[in-house]
Amino acid sequence: MNAPGHADLARRPLPEGFVEALQAQFQERCSLSHAVREHHGRDESPYPPMLPDVVVFARSTEEVAWVARHCHEHHVPLIPYGAGSSLEGHFLAIQGGVSLDLSGMDEIVAINAEDFTATVQAGVTRMALNEHIRDTGLFFPIDPGADASLGGMAATRASGTNAVRYGTMRENVLTLKVVTADGRIIDTANRAKKSSAGYDLTRLFIGSEGTLGIITEVTVRLYPQPEAISAAICNFPDLRSAVQSVIEVIQMGIPIARVEFMDTAAVRATNAYSKLTLKESPLLLFEFHGSPSGVQEQAQVVQEITRENGGMDFEWADKAEDRSRLWTARHNAYFAGLQLRPGCRSSTTDVCVPISALAECVAQTAADMDQAPFPYTIVGHVGDGNFHVLMLLDADSQEEWDESERLNHRLVERAIAMQGTCTGEHGVGLHKMEFMLAEHGQDALDVMSSIKQALDPHNIMNPGKMLPPRPLD
Amino acid sequence: MNAPGHADLARRPLPEGFVEALQAQFQERCSLSHAVREHHGRDESPYPPMLPDVVVFARSTEEVAWVARHCHEHHVPLIPYGAGSSLEGHFLAIQGGVSLDLSGMDEIVAINAEDFTATVQAGVTRMALNEHIRDTGLFFPIDPGADASLGGMAATRASGTNAVRYGTMRENVLTLKVVTADGRIIDTANRAKKSSAGYDLTRLFIGSEGTLGIITEVTVRLYPQPEAISAAICNFPDLRSAVQSVIEVIQMGIPIARVEFMDTAAVRATNAYSKLTLKESPLLLFEFHGSPSGVQEQAQVVQEITRENGGMDFEWADKAEDRSRLWTARHNAYFAGLQLRPGCRSSTTDVCVPISALAECVAQTAADMDQAPFPYTIVGHVGDGNFHVLMLLDADSQEEWDESERLNHRLVERAIAMQGTCTGEHGVGLHKMEFMLAEHGQDALDVMSSIKQALDPHNIMNPGKMLPPRPLD
Repeated sequence: MNAPGHADLARRPLPEGFVEALQAQFQERCSLSHAVREHHGRDESPYPPMLPDVVVFARSTEEVAWVARHCHEHHVPLIPYGAGSSLEGHFLAIQGGVSLDLSGMDEIVAINAEDFTATVQAGVTRMALNEHIRDTGLFFPIDPGADASLGGMAATRASGTNAVRYGTMRENVLTLKVVTADGRIIDTANRAKKSSAGYDLTRLFIGSEGTLGIITEVTVRLYPQPEAISAAICNFPDLRSAVQSVIEVIQMGIPIARVEFMDTAAVRATNAYSKLTLKESPLLLFEFHGSPSGVQEQAQVVQEITRENGGMDFEWADKAEDRSRLWTARHNAYFAGLQLRPGCRSSTTDVCVPISALAECVAQTAADMDQAPFPYTIVGHVGDGNFHVLMLLDADSQEEWDESERLNHRLVERAIAMQGTCTGEHGVGLHKMEFMLAEHGQDALDVMSSIKQALDPHNIMNPGKMLPPRPLD
Repeated sequence: MNAPGHADLARRPLPEGFVEALQAQFQERCSLSHAVREHHGRDESPYPPMLPDVVVFARSTEEVAWVARHCHEHHVPLIPYGAGSSLEGHFLAIQGGVSLDLSGMDEIVAINAEDFTATVQAGVTRMALNEHIRDTGLFFPIDPGADASLGGMAATRASGTNAVRYGTMRENVLTLKVVTADGRIIDTANRAKKSSAGYDLTRLFIGSEGTLGIITEVTVRLYPQPEAISAAICNFPDLRSAVQSVIEVIQMGIPIARVEFMDTAAVRATNAYSKLTLKESPLLLFEFHGSPSGVQEQAQVVQEITRENGGMDFEWADKAEDRSRLWTARHNAYFAGLQLRPGCRSSTTDVCVPISALAECVAQTAADMDQAPFPYTIVGHVGDGNFHVLMLLDADSQEEWDESERLNHRLVERAIAMQGTCTGEHGVGLHKMEFMLAEHGQDALDVMSSIKQALDPHNIMNPGKMLPPRPLD
């Protein structure tokens, strides 16, 4: 389970005096301990731990800038670290260097309720933000399963179950404070809702996975808590009929807030893990936001569509606690899946295709996966054309790993042929890097590399990720 | 009325044989005629014409790539030209070179109605697209006043009256085909609704104003034509009460489709130009999209809010022809304004501020403008915090020009102090270039310049626009 294409990128020792200078500056917030380094060199990806040489805990943008200048000067790799919830090997220290932990930058800088914006330091998690603003009548909708940090979510262009209605981090960030690779501090934009003033630096850093600079502050859009919320579950005889229902809902233009697919195995795992009694067949989990009459109107149309597609037992969950239980269960589907094979190592796929291709893509994938020598589950943000296969591998079996990679390759090829992407929301990290050429083509990849070279000339920012690896400067 | 900061950027003659090679390649689609060059060197900005040396009419992405390679090789400025509707001097050939007219690239490449996407060549205009898809039940919402080309709209990150509900070009482009400065052809993304695969090249080229490459194909999102549409006009005793109503509507989270402000002078001009009998006081023009009951619900809440703010004569326009007449009048407000002072030259402002600052910003601006020695009108996409002052200047008066620039300066400073932007939707071009430093700061501007340098090393792409001018390579 080696990271692909990195055989020739050896680590090299830190320059003399480099760590001492960090220690002098950060005191006890600079750690060389194995336990701390291991914690910062291990994620939810299938790769083994790859430890940074040193971990620094930053408290301010100025401290981040200091570290960046120090690393820039000495050509030492610098890897921003948020909540550590990456699935794709994003922050594994493949070439060593400094892991810069931003989780202590957890200040809510400003809530501008009148403008529906919040400005937070990068280490604030999405749940902490929502907890903080609960009394304003507003909420922040983007919800990857994990309680990720806003900085990390911006860096990976994250989304989640609400994206079908509210968009992704791409649509929901107004401006970022960023430390460049050489330690300058910039604001990428301002709080105006729209602007045509210059290159879109905000969107350039969103999804850049720490390879261009370090996001230290994020200004996001907030939304009014819906007047009415309603949720429903609907079971289906098979996967195709469930997915087909979603396609029709989307094509009707229903402003649905969430629509999640779970296959039978995922439902079974969730029942066991979250102590639920959902019927164990392919199902869709819906949520509707709006005015009371609007919600009712949406739900009625959706119920009709599911019925026409063979949906059964359209069940309502109107009470807040029932809804909350359901969505917590959905968010725990990843951990629930892992329990299907205790002690396993997981590998996750993340393709996203145009909705017209979704049923075919999911069906072909399930047929493929049925031949695999390991268990799997499928869940998906199907309203966006995005779904995940969670493959549960014997941690010691190279054979299973190879087969999971082969199946993922086939899936990504299928998605790209359907004009889709290898990653809808997890990001590239290490694990999707090999697909970048097939997805973008050499010329577009060269344009990305030119930008990387221009903004990070010494290649110190999270090196060896996203773009084809090149040696350190 | 010289363009700022360009005194030292002299034109230089085209290299020997350069034009002959273009002529050999493009035959009658390569023009040196004064009339054609003048047509391509004159826009709606306050600047005098600045003519390109030669105009080429492209028919395909491959032809565009050929021209780019030719210009790159010979270090000759290359300026993409769409519908010619810029207000900010975007395509004036300040350093001469080639104007590359894309208006003949007007093919609808693909309509994917099931996915709500359309792929068109860059020269297709927004009205041509909407005409083409009328029978699909879908529409493309972005509507700058002019019938701009989709390529130009992407290049300037355009928006318009529908942006409050549907977003701008930033949110509504899925992928672009782009010819780079050295003539490579790339697709910036694919048709997946969301993706985390690499740098967001799509958003980088959106708003880049032809300074990084040439957009030759645009894939946009379409929307279902709303089941019900309703429009309304409401008059107000003063500007503040109108703007305050909008702020409250937005803060209530009403999913209003359009909300436009016109001051008394703008209403008067529109009455005269479009032969209407609107009451001549500050007014708001609303449009609601949704289900019949949803539209009614929205309109009721809005009517209450306007009434509480002193709004009078809330008047409905439910019939399609009445609505169409109203919105045509609104879209013609610019030309209507020009008629207030026949033979005048206009200068337009375009600030956008957070909605909480909007009432103050508009009121201070109107007070300022009341001191001006020339007539003006104010109209605005106020739901987004964006408004325009149209200043009507004596074409021969340097004094009026200087005063309009001073007032625009004050306005932009005000907007930036309120965390806003100098341009919400028109783009930077020549006319807003001097504000880039104040808005972004030197370090962010340097980051933009690094990107420009990386993707256009010879500085041939629309040189002297947007970023501080530098000499040709």
